[in-house]
Amino acid sequence: MRLIRFGPAGDEKPGIIGSNGSRCDLSAHFQDWDTKFFASGDVDRLAEILRRDAASLPVVPETERWAAPVARPGKVICIGLNYSDHAEESGMPIPAEPIVFLKASNTVIGPYDNIQIPRGGEKTDWEVELGVVIGKEARYLASPEAARSHIAGYCVSHDVSERAFQLERGGQWTKGKSCDTFNPLGPWLATPEEISNVDALPMKLCVNGELRQKGTTAKMIFNVPFLVHYLSQFMTLEPGDLISTGTPPGVGLGMKPPKYLKAGDVVELEIEQLGRQKQICVIL
Amino acid sequence: MRLIRFGPAGDEKPGIIGSNGSRCDLSAHFQDWDTKFFASGDVDRLAEILRRDAASLPVVPETERWAAPVARPGKVICIGLNYSDHAEESGMPIPAEPIVFLKASNTVIGPYDNIQIPRGGEKTDWEVELGVVIGKEARYLASPEAARSHIAGYCVSHDVSERAFQLERGGQWTKGKSCDTFNPLGPWLATPEEISNVDALPMKLCVNGELRQKGTTAKMIFNVPFLVHYLSQFMTLEPGDLISTGTPPGVGLGMKPPKYLKAGDVVELEIEQLGRQKQICVIL
Repeated sequence: MRLIRFGPAGDEKPGIIGSNGSRCDLSAHFQDWDTKFFASGDVDRLAEILRRDAASLPVVPETERWAAPVARPGKVICIGLNYSDHAEESGMPIPAEPIVFLKASNTVIGPYDNIQIPRGGEKTDWEVELGVVIGKEARYLASPEAARSHIAGYCVSHDVSERAFQLERGGQWTKGKSCDTFNPLGPWLATPEEISNVDALPMKLCVNGELRQKGTTAKMIFNVPFLVHYLSQFMTLEPGDLISTGTPPGVGLGMKPPKYLKAGDVVELEIEQLGRQKQICVIL
Repeated sequence: MRLIRFGPAGDEKPGIIGSNGSRCDLSAHFQDWDTKFFASGDVDRLAEILRRDAASLPVVPETERWAAPVARPGKVICIGLNYSDHAEESGMPIPAEPIVFLKASNTVIGPYDNIQIPRGGEKTDWEVELGVVIGKEARYLASPEAARSHIAGYCVSHDVSERAFQLERGGQWTKGKSCDTFNPLGPWLATPEEISNVDALPMKLCVNGELRQKGTTAKMIFNVPFLVHYLSQFMTLEPGDLISTGTPPGVGLGMKPPKYLKAGDVVELEIEQLGRQKQICVIL
Protein backbone atom coordinates (compact mmCIF):
# COMPACT_ATOMS: atom_id res chain seq x y z
CA MET A 1 0.00 0.00 0.00
CA ARG A 2 1.05 3.57 -0.62
CA LEU A 3 -0.29 5.90 2.09
CA ILE A 4 -0.73 9.62 1.43
CA ARG A 5 -2.28 12.59 3.18
CA PHE A 6 -3.89 15.56 1.48
CA GLY A 7 -5.47 18.92 2.25
CA PRO A 8 -4.37 22.25 3.69
CA ALA A 9 -1.64 22.42 6.34
CA GLY A 10 -3.16 21.75 9.74
CA ASP A 11 -6.24 20.05 8.28
CA GLU A 12 -4.83 17.02 6.49
CA LYS A 13 -6.81 13.88 5.73
CA PRO A 14 -5.61 10.31 5.15
CA GLY A 15 -5.73 8.56 1.80
CA ILE A 16 -3.93 6.07 -0.40
CA ILE A 17 -2.73 5.88 -3.95
CA GLY A 18 -5.03 3.49 -5.82
CA SER A 19 -3.93 0.87 -8.32
CA ASN A 20 -4.71 3.31 -11.17
CA GLY A 21 -2.41 5.94 -9.64
CA SER A 22 -5.06 8.36 -8.40
CA ARG A 23 -5.34 9.46 -4.79
CA CYS A 24 -8.28 8.01 -2.83
CA ASP A 25 -9.83 9.56 0.28
CA LEU A 26 -9.98 7.33 3.35
CA SER A 27 -11.10 9.97 5.84
CA ALA A 28 -14.49 8.28 6.17
CA HIS A 29 -12.72 5.25 7.66
CA PHE A 30 -9.69 6.67 9.52
CA GLN A 31 -8.85 9.87 11.37
CA ASP A 32 -5.21 10.07 10.36
CA TRP A 33 -2.06 8.06 9.66
CA ASP A 34 -0.76 8.76 13.15
CA THR A 35 0.62 7.02 16.23
CA LYS A 36 -2.81 5.67 17.12
CA PHE A 37 -3.35 4.27 13.63
CA PHE A 38 -0.02 2.45 13.52
CA ALA A 39 -0.22 1.30 17.14
CA SER A 40 -3.71 -0.13 16.90
CA GLY A 41 -3.13 -2.57 14.06
CA ASP A 42 -5.45 -0.53 11.84
CA VAL A 43 -3.06 -1.16 8.96
CA ASP A 44 -4.73 -4.56 8.61
CA ARG A 45 -8.16 -2.95 8.62
CA LEU A 46 -6.98 -0.58 5.88
CA ALA A 47 -5.78 -3.51 3.78
CA GLU A 48 -9.15 -5.20 4.23
CA ILE A 49 -11.05 -2.07 3.12
CA LEU A 50 -8.86 -1.82 0.04
CA ARG A 51 -9.49 -5.46 -0.84
CA ARG A 52 -13.24 -5.04 -0.57
CA ASP A 53 -14.07 -1.45 -1.48
CA ALA A 54 -11.13 0.09 -3.34
CA ALA A 55 -13.25 0.96 -6.36
CA SER A 56 -15.83 2.87 -4.33
CA LEU A 57 -13.44 5.21 -2.46
CA PRO A 58 -13.82 8.94 -3.29
CA VAL A 59 -11.07 10.27 -5.53
CA VAL A 60 -9.07 13.23 -4.17
CA PRO A 61 -9.23 16.23 -6.56
CA GLU A 62 -5.89 16.85 -8.26
CA THR A 63 -5.85 20.41 -6.98
CA GLU A 64 -5.64 19.23 -3.36
CA ARG A 65 -2.25 19.79 -1.71
CA TRP A 66 -0.03 16.76 -1.11
CA ALA A 67 0.77 16.69 2.61
CA ALA A 68 3.41 14.66 4.42
CA PRO A 69 2.26 11.02 4.21
CA VAL A 70 2.12 10.59 8.01
CA ALA A 71 0.97 12.85 10.85
CA ARG A 72 3.60 14.86 12.67
CA PRO A 73 6.01 12.30 14.19
CA GLY A 74 6.60 12.12 17.94
CA LYS A 75 10.26 12.41 17.09
CA VAL A 76 12.45 12.73 14.01
CA ILE A 77 15.72 10.86 14.42
CA CYS A 78 18.47 11.43 11.86
CA ILE A 79 21.59 9.44 11.10
CA GLY A 80 24.73 11.34 10.09
CA LEU A 81 27.46 10.22 7.69
CA ASN A 82 25.82 6.87 6.86
CA TYR A 83 26.96 6.44 3.24
CA SER A 84 30.44 5.07 2.66
CA ASP A 85 30.89 7.07 -0.57
CA HIS A 86 29.77 10.27 1.20
CA ALA A 87 32.26 9.62 4.03
CA GLU A 88 35.03 9.07 1.47
CA GLU A 89 34.08 12.24 -0.41
CA SER A 90 34.16 14.20 2.86
CA GLY A 91 37.51 12.72 3.86
CA MET A 92 35.88 11.51 7.08
CA PRO A 93 36.54 8.12 8.64
CA ILE A 94 33.74 5.53 8.50
CA PRO A 95 31.91 5.92 11.86
CA ALA A 96 32.29 2.97 14.23
CA GLU A 97 28.69 3.45 15.37
CA PRO A 98 25.78 5.41 13.87
CA ILE A 99 25.88 9.17 14.45
CA VAL A 100 22.48 10.13 15.82
CA PHE A 101 20.76 13.48 16.19
CA LEU A 102 17.21 14.76 16.56
CA LYS A 103 15.38 17.24 14.37
CA ALA A 104 12.37 19.16 15.71
CA SER A 105 9.30 17.38 14.34
CA ASN A 106 7.47 20.61 13.48
CA THR A 107 9.88 20.85 10.53
CA VAL A 108 7.85 18.23 8.62
CA ILE A 109 5.97 19.57 5.57
CA GLY A 110 4.51 18.20 2.33
CA PRO A 111 6.70 17.03 -0.57
CA TYR A 112 5.81 20.02 -2.82
CA ASP A 113 5.66 22.76 -0.17
CA ASN A 114 8.15 25.63 -0.27
CA ILE A 115 11.43 25.49 1.64
CA GLN A 116 11.90 28.69 3.67
CA ILE A 117 15.48 29.85 3.84
CA PRO A 118 15.68 31.03 7.47
CA ARG A 119 16.46 34.65 8.32
CA GLY A 120 20.20 35.09 8.39
CA GLY A 121 20.68 31.74 6.66
CA GLU A 122 23.29 31.78 3.91
CA LYS A 123 24.27 28.13 3.77
CA THR A 124 21.01 26.26 3.35
CA ASP A 125 21.79 22.81 1.98
CA TRP A 126 19.97 19.75 0.60
CA GLU A 127 20.10 16.07 1.65
CA VAL A 128 18.00 13.36 0.03
CA GLU A 129 17.40 10.52 2.49
CA LEU A 130 15.47 7.30 2.87
CA GLY A 131 12.86 7.84 5.59
CA VAL A 132 11.67 4.95 7.76
CA VAL A 133 8.46 5.21 9.80
CA ILE A 134 8.03 3.05 12.90
CA GLY A 135 4.90 0.89 13.04
CA LYS A 136 5.24 -0.82 16.41
CA GLU A 137 6.93 0.27 19.64
CA ALA A 138 10.59 -0.77 19.65
CA ARG A 139 12.63 -0.98 22.85
CA TYR A 140 15.76 -3.05 23.39
CA LEU A 141 15.14 -5.13 20.26
CA ALA A 142 17.07 -8.39 20.38
CA SER A 143 18.50 -8.20 16.84
CA PRO A 144 18.40 -6.33 13.54
CA GLU A 145 16.23 -9.18 12.22
CA ALA A 146 13.68 -8.48 14.99
CA ALA A 147 13.48 -4.85 13.81
CA ARG A 148 11.75 -5.73 10.54
CA SER A 149 8.31 -6.19 12.07
CA HIS A 150 8.55 -2.73 13.70
CA ILE A 151 8.69 -0.85 10.40
CA ALA A 152 5.48 0.73 9.04
CA GLY A 153 7.03 1.81 5.75
CA TYR A 154 9.45 3.87 3.71
CA CYS A 155 9.36 7.32 2.14
CA VAL A 156 11.53 10.11 0.74
CA SER A 157 12.76 12.44 3.49
CA HIS A 158 14.50 15.72 2.70
CA ASP A 159 16.80 16.60 5.62
CA VAL A 160 17.33 20.29 4.85
CA SER A 161 20.16 21.92 6.84
CA GLU A 162 21.47 25.44 7.39
CA ARG A 163 25.20 24.75 7.62
CA ALA A 164 26.20 28.03 9.25
CA PHE A 165 23.64 27.48 12.03
CA GLN A 166 24.65 23.81 12.28
CA LEU A 167 28.43 24.18 12.35
CA GLU A 168 29.43 27.76 13.10
CA ARG A 169 27.14 28.81 15.97
CA GLY A 170 28.52 26.64 18.78
CA GLY A 171 27.65 23.26 20.22
CA GLN A 172 25.41 20.66 18.69
CA TRP A 173 23.81 20.48 15.21
CA THR A 174 20.26 21.26 16.38
CA LYS A 175 20.16 24.95 15.37
CA GLY A 176 20.82 24.13 11.73
CA LYS A 177 18.44 21.19 11.49
CA SER A 178 15.23 22.39 13.11
CA CYS A 179 14.21 25.47 11.11
CA ASP A 180 10.63 25.63 9.82
CA THR A 181 10.00 23.64 6.61
CA PHE A 182 13.29 21.74 6.90
CA ASN A 183 11.78 18.28 6.45
CA PRO A 184 9.72 17.79 3.28
CA LEU A 185 8.32 14.24 3.48
CA GLY A 186 6.64 11.99 0.92
CA PRO A 187 4.87 11.96 -1.49
CA TRP A 188 3.84 8.55 -0.11
CA LEU A 189 4.69 6.03 2.57
CA ALA A 190 5.22 2.62 0.97
CA THR A 191 4.45 -0.28 3.28
CA PRO A 192 7.29 -2.83 3.42
CA GLU A 193 5.76 -5.41 1.05
CA GLU A 194 5.78 -2.74 -1.70
CA ILE A 195 9.57 -2.42 -1.66
CA SER A 196 11.47 -5.54 -2.59
CA ASN A 197 14.97 -4.06 -2.46
CA VAL A 198 15.19 -1.46 0.28
CA ASP A 199 18.92 -2.22 0.45
CA ALA A 200 19.48 -1.17 -3.18
CA LEU A 201 17.24 1.77 -4.00
CA PRO A 202 18.69 4.34 -6.41
CA MET A 203 18.25 7.95 -5.25
CA LYS A 204 19.09 11.37 -6.67
CA LEU A 205 18.63 15.09 -6.15
CA CYS A 206 18.76 17.98 -8.63
CA VAL A 207 18.93 21.74 -8.07
CA ASN A 208 17.54 23.82 -10.97
CA GLY A 209 17.74 20.71 -13.12
CA GLU A 210 21.43 20.03 -12.38
CA LEU A 211 22.20 16.66 -10.82
CA ARG A 212 23.81 17.17 -7.40
CA GLN A 213 23.30 13.92 -5.49
CA LYS A 214 23.29 10.43 -6.93
CA GLY A 215 23.50 7.33 -4.84
CA THR A 216 21.97 4.10 -3.72
CA THR A 217 20.92 2.75 -0.36
CA ALA A 218 23.34 -0.11 -1.11
CA LYS A 219 26.11 2.24 0.08
CA MET A 220 24.63 2.62 3.56
CA ILE A 221 27.17 1.83 6.25
CA PHE A 222 24.42 0.80 8.70
CA ASN A 223 21.33 -0.61 7.03
CA VAL A 224 17.72 -0.05 8.07
CA PRO A 225 17.18 -3.09 10.34
CA PHE A 226 20.51 -2.42 12.04
CA LEU A 227 19.58 1.24 12.65
CA VAL A 228 16.17 0.42 14.14
CA HIS A 229 17.74 -2.23 16.38
CA TYR A 230 20.58 0.10 17.36
CA LEU A 231 18.37 3.10 18.18
CA SER A 232 16.07 0.93 20.28
CA GLN A 233 18.99 0.32 22.68
CA PHE A 234 19.06 4.05 23.53
CA MET A 235 15.46 5.20 23.31
CA THR A 236 11.98 3.83 22.83
CA LEU A 237 10.85 4.17 19.22
CA GLU A 238 7.13 4.79 19.02
CA PRO A 239 4.63 4.18 16.22
CA GLY A 240 4.75 7.12 13.83
CA ASP A 241 8.33 8.13 14.70
CA LEU A 242 10.48 8.97 11.65
CA ILE A 243 14.09 7.93 11.07
CA SER A 244 16.02 9.69 8.30
CA THR A 245 18.82 7.31 7.46
CA GLY A 246 21.57 9.55 6.08
CA THR A 247 22.48 11.07 2.73
CA PRO A 248 24.63 9.98 -0.27
CA PRO A 249 27.43 12.15 -1.76
CA GLY A 250 26.81 15.51 -3.38
CA VAL A 251 25.62 17.94 -0.72
CA GLY A 252 26.37 21.66 -1.17
CA LEU A 253 28.79 21.70 1.76
CA GLY A 254 30.97 19.15 -0.05
CA MET A 255 31.22 21.06 -3.35
CA LYS A 256 34.39 22.93 -4.21
CA PRO A 257 33.62 25.74 -3.65
CA PRO A 258 30.52 25.00 -1.52
CA LYS A 259 27.19 25.91 -3.12
CA TYR A 260 23.98 26.61 -1.26
CA LEU A 261 20.29 27.22 -1.90
CA LYS A 262 18.98 30.68 -2.68
CA ALA A 263 15.49 32.09 -3.16
CA GLY A 264 13.93 30.83 -6.38
CA ASP A 265 15.99 27.64 -6.56
CA VAL A 266 14.06 24.51 -7.42
CA VAL A 267 15.03 21.27 -5.67
CA GLU A 268 13.83 17.92 -7.01
CA LEU A 269 14.61 14.66 -5.28
CA GLU A 270 13.65 11.09 -5.89
CA ILE A 271 14.09 7.57 -4.58
CA GLU A 272 13.07 4.73 -6.85
CA GLN A 273 9.67 3.27 -5.91
CA LEU A 274 9.16 6.05 -3.34
CA GLY A 275 8.35 8.91 -5.67
CA ARG A 276 9.64 12.38 -6.34
CA GLN A 277 9.56 15.63 -4.35
CA LYS A 278 9.86 19.17 -5.68
CA GLN A 279 10.35 22.33 -3.61
CA ILE A 280 10.90 25.98 -4.42
CA CYS A 281 13.13 27.94 -2.05
CA VAL A 282 11.71 31.18 -0.68
CA ILE A 283 12.73 33.90 1.72
CA LEU A 284 10.28 34.98 4.40
CA MET B 1 -1.49 29.49 39.54
CA ARG B 2 0.27 26.19 40.05
CA LEU B 3 -0.77 23.63 37.42
CA ILE B 4 -0.41 19.92 38.08
CA ARG B 5 -1.47 16.67 36.42
CA PHE B 6 -2.35 13.46 38.21
CA GLY B 7 -3.28 9.85 37.53
CA PRO B 8 -1.66 6.78 35.99
CA ALA B 9 0.85 7.15 33.15
CA GLY B 10 -1.01 7.49 29.87
CA ASP B 11 -4.25 8.55 31.57
CA GLU B 12 -3.34 11.80 33.29
CA LYS B 13 -5.83 14.50 34.20
CA PRO B 14 -5.31 18.23 34.72
CA GLY B 15 -5.55 19.96 38.06
CA ILE B 16 -4.12 22.77 40.16
CA ILE B 17 -2.72 23.21 43.63
CA GLY B 18 -5.30 25.10 45.67
CA SER B 19 -4.58 27.89 48.09
CA ASN B 20 -4.67 25.38 50.98
CA GLY B 21 -2.01 23.25 49.27
CA SER B 22 -4.20 20.34 48.21
CA ARG B 23 -4.53 19.20 44.61
CA CYS B 24 -7.81 20.02 42.88
CA ASP B 25 -9.25 18.17 39.88
CA LEU B 26 -10.05 20.32 36.84
CA SER B 27 -10.81 17.49 34.41
CA ALA B 28 -14.48 18.48 34.34
CA HIS B 29 -13.43 21.78 32.76
CA PHE B 30 -10.35 20.99 30.67
CA GLN B 31 -9.03 18.01 28.74
CA ASP B 32 -5.34 18.53 29.49
CA TRP B 33 -2.62 21.11 29.99
CA ASP B 34 -1.44 20.66 26.40
CA THR B 35 -0.67 22.62 23.25
CA LYS B 36 -4.34 23.26 22.61
CA PHE B 37 -4.91 24.57 26.15
CA PHE B 38 -2.00 26.99 26.03
CA ALA B 39 -2.68 28.07 22.44
CA SER B 40 -6.35 28.79 22.94
CA GLY B 41 -6.05 31.29 25.74
CA ASP B 42 -7.76 28.86 28.11
CA VAL B 43 -5.35 29.97 30.82
CA ASP B 44 -7.63 32.98 31.32
CA ARG B 45 -10.67 30.72 31.53
CA LEU B 46 -8.85 28.66 34.17
CA ALA B 47 -8.10 31.78 36.20
CA GLU B 48 -11.78 32.77 36.00
CA ILE B 49 -12.92 29.32 37.21
CA LEU B 50 -10.52 29.54 40.13
CA ARG B 51 -11.78 32.99 41.06
CA ARG B 52 -15.40 31.84 41.04
CA ASP B 53 -15.43 28.17 42.02
CA ALA B 54 -12.13 27.25 43.64
CA ALA B 55 -13.81 25.99 46.80
CA SER B 56 -16.10 23.59 44.94
CA LEU B 57 -13.45 21.76 42.90
CA PRO B 58 -13.01 18.04 43.72
CA VAL B 59 -9.90 17.27 45.76
CA VAL B 60 -7.47 14.77 44.24
CA PRO B 61 -6.86 11.80 46.61
CA GLU B 62 -3.35 11.86 48.08
CA THR B 63 -2.70 8.35 46.74
CA GLU B 64 -2.99 9.54 43.13
CA ARG B 65 0.32 9.65 41.24
CA TRP B 66 1.86 13.04 40.53
CA ALA B 67 2.35 13.25 36.76
CA ALA B 68 4.40 15.75 34.78
CA PRO B 69 2.58 19.10 35.09
CA VAL B 70 2.08 19.47 31.33
CA ALA B 71 1.20 17.01 28.55
CA ARG B 72 4.05 15.53 26.54
CA PRO B 73 5.79 18.51 24.88
CA GLY B 74 6.06 18.78 21.09
CA LYS B 75 9.77 19.22 21.67
CA VAL B 76 12.17 19.35 24.59
CA ILE B 77 14.98 21.83 23.98
CA CYS B 78 17.96 21.82 26.32
CA ILE B 79 20.68 24.40 26.89
CA GLY B 80 24.19 23.16 27.65
CA LEU B 81 26.81 24.82 29.85
CA ASN B 82 24.61 27.78 30.81
CA TYR B 83 25.89 28.47 34.34
CA SER B 84 29.06 30.50 34.70
CA ASP B 85 30.12 28.65 37.86
CA HIS B 86 29.53 25.28 36.15
CA ALA B 87 31.62 26.39 33.14
CA GLU B 88 34.41 27.49 35.50
CA GLU B 89 34.24 24.20 37.42
CA SER B 90 34.47 22.26 34.14
CA GLY B 91 37.39 24.37 32.93
CA MET B 92 35.33 25.23 29.84
CA PRO B 93 35.21 28.68 28.26
CA ILE B 94 31.96 30.67 28.62
CA PRO B 95 30.01 29.90 25.42
CA ALA B 96 29.64 32.84 23.04
CA GLU B 97 26.14 31.65 22.15
CA PRO B 98 23.79 29.17 23.84
CA ILE B 99 24.58 25.50 23.24
CA VAL B 100 21.34 23.87 22.11
CA PHE B 101 20.28 20.25 21.83
CA LEU B 102 17.06 18.28 21.70
CA LYS B 103 15.89 15.51 23.99
CA ALA B 104 13.23 13.03 22.86
CA SER B 105 9.98 14.17 24.44
CA ASN B 106 8.90 10.64 25.41
CA THR B 107 11.50 10.91 28.19
CA VAL B 108 9.15 13.10 30.26
CA ILE B 109 7.79 11.43 33.42
CA GLY B 110 6.33 12.51 36.76
CA PRO B 111 8.44 14.11 39.50
CA TYR B 112 8.33 11.03 41.78
CA ASP B 113 8.52 8.30 39.14
CA ASN B 114 11.52 5.96 39.04
CA ILE B 115 14.56 6.73 36.91
CA GLN B 116 15.51 3.68 34.83
CA ILE B 117 19.23 3.23 34.39
CA PRO B 118 19.39 2.09 30.75
CA ARG B 119 20.81 -1.31 29.81
CA GLY B 120 24.55 -0.99 29.48
CA GLY B 121 24.47 2.39 31.21
CA GLU B 122 27.24 2.88 33.77
CA LYS B 123 27.49 6.67 33.86
CA THR B 124 23.96 7.86 34.52
CA ASP B 125 24.15 11.40 35.86
CA TRP B 126 21.87 14.05 37.38
CA GLU B 127 21.20 17.67 36.34
CA VAL B 128 18.72 19.93 38.14
CA GLU B 129 17.41 22.59 35.74
CA LEU B 130 14.87 25.36 35.54
CA GLY B 131 12.22 24.30 32.99
CA VAL B 132 10.34 26.88 30.93
CA VAL B 133 7.10 25.98 29.14
CA ILE B 134 6.04 27.98 26.09
CA GLY B 135 2.55 29.49 26.18
CA LYS B 136 2.29 31.22 22.81
CA GLU B 137 3.93 30.45 19.45
CA ALA B 138 7.31 32.19 19.19
CA ARG B 139 9.03 32.75 15.86
CA TYR B 140 11.64 35.41 15.12
CA LEU B 141 10.85 37.35 18.29
CA ALA B 142 12.09 40.93 18.07
CA SER B 143 13.78 41.06 21.49
CA PRO B 144 14.27 39.22 24.78
CA GLU B 145 11.70 41.59 26.26
CA ALA B 146 9.14 40.39 23.69
CA ALA B 147 9.75 36.81 24.86
CA ARG B 148 8.12 37.34 28.25
CA SER B 149 4.55 37.10 26.96
CA HIS B 150 5.35 33.75 25.29
CA ILE B 151 6.09 31.95 28.56
CA ALA B 152 3.37 29.79 30.14
CA GLY B 153 5.34 29.06 33.28
CA TYR B 154 8.25 27.52 35.14
CA CYS B 155 8.96 24.13 36.69
CA VAL B 156 11.72 21.84 37.92
CA SER B 157 13.18 19.77 35.06
CA HIS B 158 15.58 16.91 35.72
CA ASP B 159 17.79 16.47 32.62
CA VAL B 160 19.08 12.96 33.33
CA SER B 161 22.02 11.93 31.13
CA GLU B 162 23.95 8.73 30.48
CA ARG B 163 27.46 10.14 29.98
CA ALA B 164 28.96 7.10 28.26
CA PHE B 165 26.15 7.12 25.67
CA GLN B 166 26.40 10.92 25.38
CA LEU B 167 30.15 11.30 25.03
CA GLU B 168 31.78 7.97 24.19
CA ARG B 169 29.55 6.48 21.49
CA GLY B 170 30.27 8.86 18.61
CA GLY B 171 28.66 11.98 17.24
CA GLN B 172 26.04 14.12 18.94
CA TRP B 173 24.72 14.00 22.54
CA THR B 174 21.31 12.52 21.61
CA LYS B 175 22.00 8.89 22.60
CA GLY B 176 22.77 9.86 26.20
CA LYS B 177 19.87 12.26 26.62
CA SER B 178 16.85 10.44 25.22
CA CYS B 179 16.61 7.24 27.27
CA ASP B 180 13.25 6.38 28.81
CA THR B 181 12.45 8.23 32.08
CA PHE B 182 15.28 10.74 31.56
CA ASN B 183 13.15 13.84 32.13
CA PRO B 184 11.27 13.94 35.45
CA LEU B 185 9.19 17.14 35.38
CA GLY B 186 7.29 19.02 38.05
CA PRO B 187 5.74 18.73 40.59
CA TRP B 188 3.96 21.84 39.32
CA LEU B 189 4.10 24.46 36.61
CA ALA B 190 4.05 27.93 38.18
CA THR B 191 2.57 30.61 35.95
CA PRO B 192 4.83 33.67 35.63
CA GLU B 193 2.99 35.90 38.11
CA GLU B 194 3.73 33.31 40.85
CA ILE B 195 7.50 33.76 40.52
CA SER B 196 8.80 37.19 41.36
CA ASN B 197 12.50 36.42 40.94
CA VAL B 198 13.04 33.89 38.18
CA ASP B 199 16.53 35.38 37.77
CA ALA B 200 17.54 34.49 41.34
CA LEU B 201 15.99 31.16 42.28
CA PRO B 202 18.10 28.95 44.57
CA MET B 203 18.28 25.31 43.43
CA LYS B 204 19.87 22.14 44.74
CA LEU B 205 20.12 18.41 44.24
CA CYS B 206 21.00 15.61 46.68
CA VAL B 207 21.86 11.95 46.09
CA ASN B 208 21.12 9.67 49.04
CA GLY B 209 20.86 12.77 51.20
CA GLU B 210 24.28 14.16 50.22
CA LEU B 211 24.26 17.60 48.63
CA ARG B 212 25.68 17.39 45.10
CA GLN B 213 24.41 20.47 43.24
CA LYS B 214 23.80 23.89 44.73
CA GLY B 215 23.25 26.96 42.65
CA THR B 216 21.05 29.81 41.67
CA THR B 217 19.51 30.91 38.40
CA ALA B 218 21.37 34.20 39.00
CA LYS B 219 24.44 32.44 37.59
CA MET B 220 22.84 31.74 34.22
CA ILE B 221 24.97 33.01 31.36
CA PHE B 222 21.91 33.45 29.12
CA ASN B 223 18.73 34.23 31.03
CA VAL B 224 15.24 32.97 30.24
CA PRO B 225 13.95 35.82 28.03
CA PHE B 226 17.22 35.80 26.11
CA LEU B 227 16.99 32.05 25.53
CA VAL B 228 13.39 32.16 24.29
CA HIS B 229 14.24 35.05 21.97
CA TYR B 230 17.41 33.32 20.77
CA LEU B 231 15.78 29.93 20.09
CA SER B 232 12.96 31.61 18.16
CA GLN B 233 15.53 32.75 15.58
CA PHE B 234 16.26 29.11 14.70
CA MET B 235 12.97 27.28 15.16
CA THR B 236 9.33 27.94 15.89
CA LEU B 237 8.57 27.40 19.57
CA GLU B 238 5.07 26.06 20.02
CA PRO B 239 2.71 26.21 23.00
CA GLY B 240 3.56 23.35 25.36
CA ASP B 241 7.20 23.05 24.24
CA LEU B 242 9.68 22.67 27.11
CA ILE B 243 13.05 24.40 27.45
CA SER B 244 15.49 23.07 30.07
CA THR B 245 17.80 25.96 30.73
CA GLY B 246 21.03 24.32 31.89
CA THR B 247 22.46 23.05 35.14
CA PRO B 248 24.56 24.57 37.97
CA PRO B 249 27.84 22.99 39.25
CA GLY B 250 28.01 19.60 40.89
CA VAL B 251 27.12 16.95 38.31
CA GLY B 252 28.63 13.45 38.69
CA LEU B 253 30.79 13.87 35.58
CA GLY B 254 32.54 16.80 37.24
CA MET B 255 33.39 15.02 40.51
CA LYS B 256 36.93 13.80 41.12
CA PRO B 257 36.68 10.90 40.60
CA PRO B 258 33.36 11.02 38.72
CA LYS B 259 30.39 9.47 40.53
CA TYR B 260 27.26 8.14 38.90
CA LEU B 261 23.84 6.82 39.80
CA LYS B 262 23.26 3.17 40.62
CA ALA B 263 20.17 1.11 41.35
CA GLY B 264 18.65 2.05 44.69
CA ASP B 265 20.04 5.58 44.74
CA VAL B 266 17.60 8.29 45.75
CA VAL B 267 17.79 11.64 43.97
CA GLU B 268 16.06 14.69 45.42
CA LEU B 269 16.06 18.03 43.66
CA GLU B 270 14.45 21.33 44.38
CA ILE B 271 14.10 24.85 43.06
CA GLU B 272 12.71 27.46 45.42
CA GLN B 273 9.01 28.22 44.71
CA LEU B 274 8.89 25.38 42.17
CA GLY B 275 8.83 22.42 44.53
CA ARG B 276 10.81 19.27 45.08
CA GLN B 277 11.23 16.07 43.08
CA LYS B 278 12.32 12.67 44.35
CA GLN B 279 13.26 9.66 42.25
CA ILE B 280 14.58 6.19 42.99
CA CYS B 281 16.97 4.69 40.45
CA VAL B 282 16.12 1.23 39.16
CA ILE B 283 17.49 -1.26 36.66
CA LEU B 284 15.12 -2.81 34.14
